[in-house]
Amino acid sequence: MSHSPKKTYAMTIVDLILAGDLRATARLLRDIDDELPTARNILKKLYPHTGKAHVVGFTGSPGVGKSTLVDQLTTRYRQEGLTVGILAVDPTSPFSGGAILGDRIRMQRHFLDSGVFIRSLATRGHFGGLTRSTFDMINVLDAMGKDVILVETVGVGQDEVEIAHSAHTTVLVTVPGMGDEVQAIKAGIMEIGSIFVVNKADREGSRGTVRELRNLIELGLRHSEDASWLPPILETEGVKGRGIDELHLAIRRHKEYLFANDRGQLDEVLRKRARNQLIEALKDEALKTLLQRRQARGLSLDVLIRKIIAHESDPYSLVQEMLSEELQ
Amino acid sequence: MSHSPKKTYAMTIVDLILAGDLRATARLLRDIDDELPTARNILKKLYPHTGKAHVVGFTGSPGVGKSTLVDQLTTRYRQEGLTVGILAVDPTSPFSGGAILGDRIRMQRHFLDSGVFIRSLATRGHFGGLTRSTFDMINVLDAMGKDVILVETVGVGQDEVEIAHSAHTTVLVTVPGMGDEVQAIKAGIMEIGSIFVVNKADREGSRGTVRELRNLIELGLRHSEDASWLPPILETEGVKGRGIDELHLAIRRHKEYLFANDRGQLDEVLRKRARNQLIEALKDEALKTLLQRRQARGLSLDVLIRKIIAHESDPYSLVQEMLSEELQ
Repeated sequence: MSHSPKKTYAMTIVDLILAGDLRATARLLRDIDDELPTARNILKKLYPHTGKAHVVGFTGSPGVGKSTLVDQLTTRYRQEGLTVGILAVDPTSPFSGGAILGDRIRMQRHFLDSGVFIRSLATRGHFGGLTRSTFDMINVLDAMGKDVILVETVGVGQDEVEIAHSAHTTVLVTVPGMGDEVQAIKAGIMEIGSIFVVNKADREGSRGTVRELRNLIELGLRHSEDASWLPPILETEGVKGRGIDELHLAIRRHKEYLFANDRGQLDEVLRKRARNQLIEALKDEALKTLLQRRQARGLSLDVLIRKIIAHESDPYSLVQEMLSEELQ
Repeated sequence: MSHSPKKTYAMTIVDLILAGDLRATARLLRDIDDELPTARNILKKLYPHTGKAHVVGFTGSPGVGKSTLVDQLTTRYRQEGLTVGILAVDPTSPFSGGAILGDRIRMQRHFLDSGVFIRSLATRGHFGGLTRSTFDMINVLDAMGKDVILVETVGVGQDEVEIAHSAHTTVLVTVPGMGDEVQAIKAGIMEIGSIFVVNKADREGSRGTVRELRNLIELGLRHSEDASWLPPILETEGVKGRGIDELHLAIRRHKEYLFANDRGQLDEVLRKRARNQLIEALKDEALKTLLQRRQARGLSLDVLIRKIIAHESDPYSLVQEMLSEELQ
């Protein structure tokens, strides 16, 4: 068994990825996308080599300029000699190929730089959740030795909050004049922000947005158990490169804060990440396994779907029946 | 067993909800939120009474004015004598009570109208997915006899696309001058829109946004297998009530289209809804059941989380072990 061709293939891929090979990495990421069982075996072998990268998440509504900031920061990291992995999580892009084309256009100037690995993730209509794939792909880029992994997520939904938990440092990006946007930040994702950015700060109302954010952060800190990190609020103009040095510095400071002598903060971040990754993988795998088992017995979901539509049964009873059949 | 106190309680609640009782409904929705097993039993009994309401989803970024449109439409429906259920799905609001307070402020003028039932859903850090709760709550409002159910979702993420599949008719809302927003719509959620709205149409660039959307829709229809419904694009000013009559009419037309003689479209919508509801419930219940069984045996997740953090094991192997222990 130890010399089966499958194992040899897997070992080779693992070695190649650990050595930073781009083709092997791209192939694994494709296999993760396609949810191939071989991908899981490789992920298992890569996992011991993870834990070195600094994972930085960027979240905000479409149009606030996250990609531009990520692009500018990538240039800064490359100037320092650091290697960069970029994951653009775009759940709104189901058209196959579209996401990859988007990368090429957006990140043209880094595309030929072998120190930068860019990959888009989009939901592909499978049962596999986006949060779970994001964790998997971060692990791959981490294992291949990227020093910094920048994860860009579109929107302010539940997925984005969960994806933010896959990062060590989270940058919340907004633009001036989105009053209700600030309300949304206020309502919920405030607590996940390590750094706040008001991009397109040349627009009217930038100072006001900064002020609003400052008030909200102060309010949040007053209700927070831990106030050892005061999230900075930065004004940037991504396209002109204004404020990028400050953002770069703020990200480094947050990393230093996490890895400082008192490791309580880092432990908390690591615990959240590990927990989320475990829960997401369990949820996905449980569903996939249950559906595969039914299919293997020739039971299709279509019969159940028809029963629900015809009101002959209800989804609640059907799910209970399915689980009681499969579980010990 | 048929005369146990539990059953009597459940029957009473069911009868009360079917009769439109607000307190009983509010209680059930709270129990769904708290993921109480009794809620599932009531949902089972309510399910045969569902299928009569027209479910209309509203999706778009924070700040585009979805709540105002929903508020204005509610007034129109009430003038017609129709009863309305409103679900505001706000995954960015984890603060307990915050969402409900938001309702009161936003919907003041409908709050005392017994023909309108308003409820916010926010993620509460449980394992239960928001999509699943949304389906459950739609079923409750449907069973209690609401004629129209308006479901408002924040953002353009994966959850929002899934939640959109819980509606018969989906209204995509944007505002002028969000170029990248249109890009996001282009990239993915185009195909879920039955009706497109450019709100705050008094702002500069409204006509241009309409034009962009029209081009995208035409492009989409050319690639679509079915072009029997041409999604209208409406300009509205929610706060002034401009364009509300047209939106109200467009929603009614879409319903008439779905329920027309050739029921192919409706069947497709019903199939998607039933399938999503089944998959979401299965995913949630499988996870919950697996975790409960482990807990009952005194196995905590913390041990596994520590192993992942220490790189003593990896999430992939741990999930496989957990599943092989529990499945037959």
